[in-house]
Amino acid sequence: MDINKKAIYPVEAWNITETEFSMTTNYRNETTFALSNGYIGTRGTFEEGYDFSVDEGLEGNFINGFYESVDIPYGEWNYGFPTRSQSLLNLPDLKKTEIYVDGELFDMRTGKVEDYSRVLHMKDGYVERKLIWISPSGKKVQFVMKRFVSFVHKNRMYQQIQVTPLNFSGEIKIRSILTGNVENHTRKTNPLIGYGPFGSRLHVNKLMADDGVLYYEGNTLGSGMTMACASCYQITGTGDGEIVTVFGTDDEEISAACESTLEVAENTTITCDKFIVYTSSQDMDADSLEAFARKELSEAAEDGWKKELLAHQEKTHEFWNISDVEIYDDEALQQGIRFNLFHIMQSAGRDGYTGMGAKGLSGEGYEGHYFWDTEMYVLPVFIYTAPELAKKLLEYRFRTLGPARDRAKVLGHPKGALYPWRTINGEEASTYFPLGTAQYHINADIAYAFWLYVNVTGDMEFFKDMAAEVLVETARVWADVGYFAECKGGKYCICAVTGPDEYNAITDNNFYTNLMGRENIRYALKSLEMLKEQGQEVYEAFIRRMEITEEETAYWQKIVDNMYFPYDEKRQVYALDDRFLMLKPWEDSKIPPEKRHLLYENYHPLFVYRQRMCKQADAIFALYLHSNFFTQEELKRNYDFYQEVTLHHSSLSNCVFGMLACQIGNYEEAYEYFAQSARMDLDDYHDNFYAGIHAANMAGTWQAIINGFAGVRVNAGKLELHPYVPEKWKGMQFHILYRGRKLNIQLTHEMTRIELAAGEPLSLVLGDKEIHLEEGKAYEEEI
Amino acid sequence: MDINKKAIYPVEAWNITETEFSMTTNYRNETTFALSNGYIGTRGTFEEGYDFSVDEGLEGNFINGFYESVDIPYGEWNYGFPTRSQSLLNLPDLKKTEIYVDGELFDMRTGKVEDYSRVLHMKDGYVERKLIWISPSGKKVQFVMKRFVSFVHKNRMYQQIQVTPLNFSGEIKIRSILTGNVENHTRKTNPLIGYGPFGSRLHVNKLMADDGVLYYEGNTLGSGMTMACASCYQITGTGDGEIVTVFGTDDEEISAACESTLEVAENTTITCDKFIVYTSSQDMDADSLEAFARKELSEAAEDGWKKELLAHQEKTHEFWNISDVEIYDDEALQQGIRFNLFHIMQSAGRDGYTGMGAKGLSGEGYEGHYFWDTEMYVLPVFIYTAPELAKKLLEYRFRTLGPARDRAKVLGHPKGALYPWRTINGEEASTYFPLGTAQYHINADIAYAFWLYVNVTGDMEFFKDMAAEVLVETARVWADVGYFAECKGGKYCICAVTGPDEYNAITDNNFYTNLMGRENIRYALKSLEMLKEQGQEVYEAFIRRMEITEEETAYWQKIVDNMYFPYDEKRQVYALDDRFLMLKPWEDSKIPPEKRHLLYENYHPLFVYRQRMCKQADAIFALYLHSNFFTQEELKRNYDFYQEVTLHHSSLSNCVFGMLACQIGNYEEAYEYFAQSARMDLDDYHDNFYAGIHAANMAGTWQAIINGFAGVRVNAGKLELHPYVPEKWKGMQFHILYRGRKLNIQLTHEMTRIELAAGEPLSLVLGDKEIHLEEGKAYEEEI
Repeated sequence: MDINKKAIYPVEAWNITETEFSMTTNYRNETTFALSNGYIGTRGTFEEGYDFSVDEGLEGNFINGFYESVDIPYGEWNYGFPTRSQSLLNLPDLKKTEIYVDGELFDMRTGKVEDYSRVLHMKDGYVERKLIWISPSGKKVQFVMKRFVSFVHKNRMYQQIQVTPLNFSGEIKIRSILTGNVENHTRKTNPLIGYGPFGSRLHVNKLMADDGVLYYEGNTLGSGMTMACASCYQITGTGDGEIVTVFGTDDEEISAACESTLEVAENTTITCDKFIVYTSSQDMDADSLEAFARKELSEAAEDGWKKELLAHQEKTHEFWNISDVEIYDDEALQQGIRFNLFHIMQSAGRDGYTGMGAKGLSGEGYEGHYFWDTEMYVLPVFIYTAPELAKKLLEYRFRTLGPARDRAKVLGHPKGALYPWRTINGEEASTYFPLGTAQYHINADIAYAFWLYVNVTGDMEFFKDMAAEVLVETARVWADVGYFAECKGGKYCICAVTGPDEYNAITDNNFYTNLMGRENIRYALKSLEMLKEQGQEVYEAFIRRMEITEEETAYWQKIVDNMYFPYDEKRQVYALDDRFLMLKPWEDSKIPPEKRHLLYENYHPLFVYRQRMCKQADAIFALYLHSNFFTQEELKRNYDFYQEVTLHHSSLSNCVFGMLACQIGNYEEAYEYFAQSARMDLDDYHDNFYAGIHAANMAGTWQAIINGFAGVRVNAGKLELHPYVPEKWKGMQFHILYRGRKLNIQLTHEMTRIELAAGEPLSLVLGDKEIHLEEGKAYEEEI
Repeated sequence: MDINKKAIYPVEAWNITETEFSMTTNYRNETTFALSNGYIGTRGTFEEGYDFSVDEGLEGNFINGFYESVDIPYGEWNYGFPTRSQSLLNLPDLKKTEIYVDGELFDMRTGKVEDYSRVLHMKDGYVERKLIWISPSGKKVQFVMKRFVSFVHKNRMYQQIQVTPLNFSGEIKIRSILTGNVENHTRKTNPLIGYGPFGSRLHVNKLMADDGVLYYEGNTLGSGMTMACASCYQITGTGDGEIVTVFGTDDEEISAACESTLEVAENTTITCDKFIVYTSSQDMDADSLEAFARKELSEAAEDGWKKELLAHQEKTHEFWNISDVEIYDDEALQQGIRFNLFHIMQSAGRDGYTGMGAKGLSGEGYEGHYFWDTEMYVLPVFIYTAPELAKKLLEYRFRTLGPARDRAKVLGHPKGALYPWRTINGEEASTYFPLGTAQYHINADIAYAFWLYVNVTGDMEFFKDMAAEVLVETARVWADVGYFAECKGGKYCICAVTGPDEYNAITDNNFYTNLMGRENIRYALKSLEMLKEQGQEVYEAFIRRMEITEEETAYWQKIVDNMYFPYDEKRQVYALDDRFLMLKPWEDSKIPPEKRHLLYENYHPLFVYRQRMCKQADAIFALYLHSNFFTQEELKRNYDFYQEVTLHHSSLSNCVFGMLACQIGNYEEAYEYFAQSARMDLDDYHDNFYAGIHAANMAGTWQAIINGFAGVRVNAGKLELHPYVPEKWKGMQFHILYRGRKLNIQLTHEMTRIELAAGEPLSLVLGDKEIHLEEGKAYEEEI
């Protein structure tokens, strides 16, 4: 990771601006300008549809949850290894729109480009490109192109192309194109993956072009899914009326196009509004797709660009109204935070049947899989600021309890649910179990997020309907996986798991796993108490349905009371696991610099496992999350120890260290960690942003401010704030939602101000005292 | 494993006899009657060349070391995972010989078969089939067919077919066939392997049929090897002279045939002697193969069947003269021991460039790979009885030091050699590192075998030329892999390895590994002393060439003095590894019987790793091998402990338990273990003999008698015997070679007799006393 990079884009509080078009930065910028609404995802490729090489770019259009499956090959297969892959499938593109200026095709690589800008308007949620193009023959044309993926209509995205001849009157031809011969894995985004889908994986059922409408319908060869996409366009502003010519379909190329040829007078602007729809058989019968898509299209056209953009912007503003974090006087970090928040917000599945990929819907990286990143990094942000989003992501986990129960059985656990390390459809998709299925902590992570959601929102309906069941089912696997080992003083030991740290695999008593697993069981026990409070009937129905016995809960309690934690007496720190202190101290200097950040691509796993170092926050994460169990001195000793042995080769590491640093008052380091986290993707520290966003770190930035600097917690069942304002800032302002209330919080070096903007009166802990708030009133104190 | 099976074949001391032909037992019997000379291997298929189904049989012809390579697919590849496979390639068949009796094709599935027998003459080293066939039209013919793979001529195998019309005079047509369109993996012998070679992997360069000679030459598509095979035949005994008709080649079927049609009078026997040659580009330029093969063929034909069979028998007798073990009055075990010895003897590579597959050359199982089975199970047998064979197998390991050095670097060890867990060409071929590369103990196993060879044979030339280097290079990996861990009292800990036991993987401080690794280092240190004894010049040249410093050897000594061993204080036993006593006690009853013996095919590895049980002898093996470091009480405690937790799901387990049982005087159990080992393959306890022999267990049988019951050891650098004669036997007799001497040893319940048949005078330890022997003299004592 190169943290000394200069800002790639101009520093602006609300925008990301690309000031010139360049092939060398195109691939990365496609991710920067990627748009999504949690259902449709589209990379920031150009309307011109350039045929980029493998190193230059990747056209990408995705539907959340729409994947292809192929057989997974193994050198040696063992029972329980997933046999079928799940890969977010790259779908036909409809953005492409060729523009011919008196017969010359608009192409930024030919002629000359002036006054170029491309802006991600984060506040309003759309991308806008402006430029003047001087064609090879000298014709000067202004282009303004806008694009958004609607937060109002799940199935729709919108484009607008405005063309103005500046030094001539002449013929402008606009050709709207459908490109259907799309393949995954044509690019360098999955270096270690040995399986497909390779080649064309959609079988075309329908391909039509008619009256400006392009329609495609195809089904996957392996996963049995059908998708449809369609586009239409409207042209306004021509002097000579509109002429739509059907260009037709090309079955061999799997493409279709419609075009309009217009006579345009000098300095007259024509506007092409283009509407695009994606849908799939996950939401309806395949038979209904065409009718649905055409209906969506005509409604989009009827409502028109302008109205829909406004509605979209309103939705975007709603998000910012609560989620925005203002930093006083640090625009670079301000920009970083907003960039991160915008990307995670737009990437989250919103329908309760889809989750959120580690790379959102911004690329093919990690096959589009959902990991623990959602629960441990992203959800805490949404839980405090966009609980409806959080709820939908949790619903997805609840709805995949079925496959998780099956998976538990495959792993030999007679009861309970074991969530998959990587998945789209709820089944395990990790092909390499030491860094996949062995990461049992996913179960505790999901439980943690459910628990946090219930505690922060107070949503008891959700608790009764979904959370309690998930908490119990996940706990059951913890209650089966370990053993009260005599040789460890009768403590409960959990063997052969991998913790969050991927440089230490198949290990015993991973501190994070044991602590989080214990808390998972504790949540299950508390849930039973809470259900009782909801009424004896509710409680008994649950107990009956889940077949929970007193013997079982007594055993859970025994585990909670007797969990084993590896501890190094000499250093007085918690060891990462049983093995960690037997390992050779890591010597970074022995590793050539070019090999340092990709250890698994340059070193055998066994070599990696034998070095006393961590890729990322692991034990430290558990200590931060459950800091109430530890003294400040303990936290400090552990922080110092893990700071020394952690390489931060994962994007998931910095923000966590930052939060613990805050907690122990190590603010300077906290600020460093935070700063790295905030601009990690915007400045492409990992040099792989082209492959997609690092959603976890993006969310971690918010956590680092709100849970870190501002010290927001509900550890002890009560809202707490332990605010600190970094030296370099004048202050900050943010909002959180807590049990139906909205709080506006403003922190400066001079004062702390907490306003209960809406909701019932609330007592909360501020630093070392309790304060009481009434609706519309603010608590203020000078520092 | 079903140990209650009835004897499959009649109990005979020197023969294995199949008394009827049956499709249901054919596949297994193909392995029983497989023949090899360590270079050519051919399964016990019939001359008729039946087109068996996937469950009925597998035609198999192999050249040791001749493999095909394809790309290995991985769900997720990591650095250091082998990228190219090595699979012993199934080669064109030349045994097939059709016989037409007045136009009716001889086929045991048609007509009627009488007086059928097929015998493996173990003493003489050949297979003989006799039967009377009554054709569908009623013609009665006697067939006698013999076959051997020459121990005299590495490239040759021989067949003889005798045909006698019993109730008619008529036309006998003999058609000698070459079948070239052969593929691996057409059968069920590699259930977990996900990679090829699939399909036809030999590209035909030459296919000829001329004057009774069939010739095939082809090269592999992936590994760049060329092989050639050829056959010719002679017919004698006809009244009407010989007629050889060239039948010709068929390029599409990749087959060729020659045939002879003969008029044969009733009760007259015609004899067809057939000579087959296999060779490959591993021994010569590909250009020379044809000339070589043709020369071998014509020499074979010139020498003739009779002379060559005699020479072959003589070689076979030479083996038995030293290796045979006689059991007085237990013919079933006698038969089992000889069957086992015969198969391992014929399977061993003899040219110093090839090793010995875990399944010999008897099938495609395990891709024909060489494992630790050779060093830890087979070599001790050869070292005491056939040291030239042992030496050749060790030479193979010496010659693959190059790839082992490369492999050490891939695993991050700056110096030394790390031998591959599975290989043919010396490079790692294990595709699943937790049960592959992680088994570092292979290094110590190889070192152990070199050390044992040098100690038992006293072959100092070999020691200087090869052994010392291997001992030092293997030791160097042990000196790098571990760490003197403060948290373990500064003891040397070895993390993230897999011991012999494949149900406990990626574990720390595996007892076997740590002990064997320590001894490996000790051998290296002792080797330096021994080199000094060979002369200061020899020593210094070695030190210089190997770049050994005093600092390095001091570090080795520090490891030897400070190796860590996991120990359970409560039970006072050595734990299998650091994890073992934290695991859940195994409950066999929870596993359905049909799933018990194939855990990895029915349970996820993580489930398996979390159970406190062993698949096979592990710690117990190290305790047996180095029993001199432990008290009898210690050995007993550990034996009892591991006996309880070991499932014996591996064929490599019983014989080891048996040997330790002997050592601690637990003779009844020792006998049980031995009996299971002795007839394991002959009675097909594992129900998978069809896939090939279990060479390790076969050799373990000899060890169980000689090292077990007879208590032969050189642990303390001196030959020791601690004889015991099982209650059920009257006695036993065997021979061993020790430092150039031949000892005949006879043990009964009444007396012990040790004769120095040849060689310098010798002092040895017998029980608790030392005895002295002179050549030709015997020591006898009554009991």
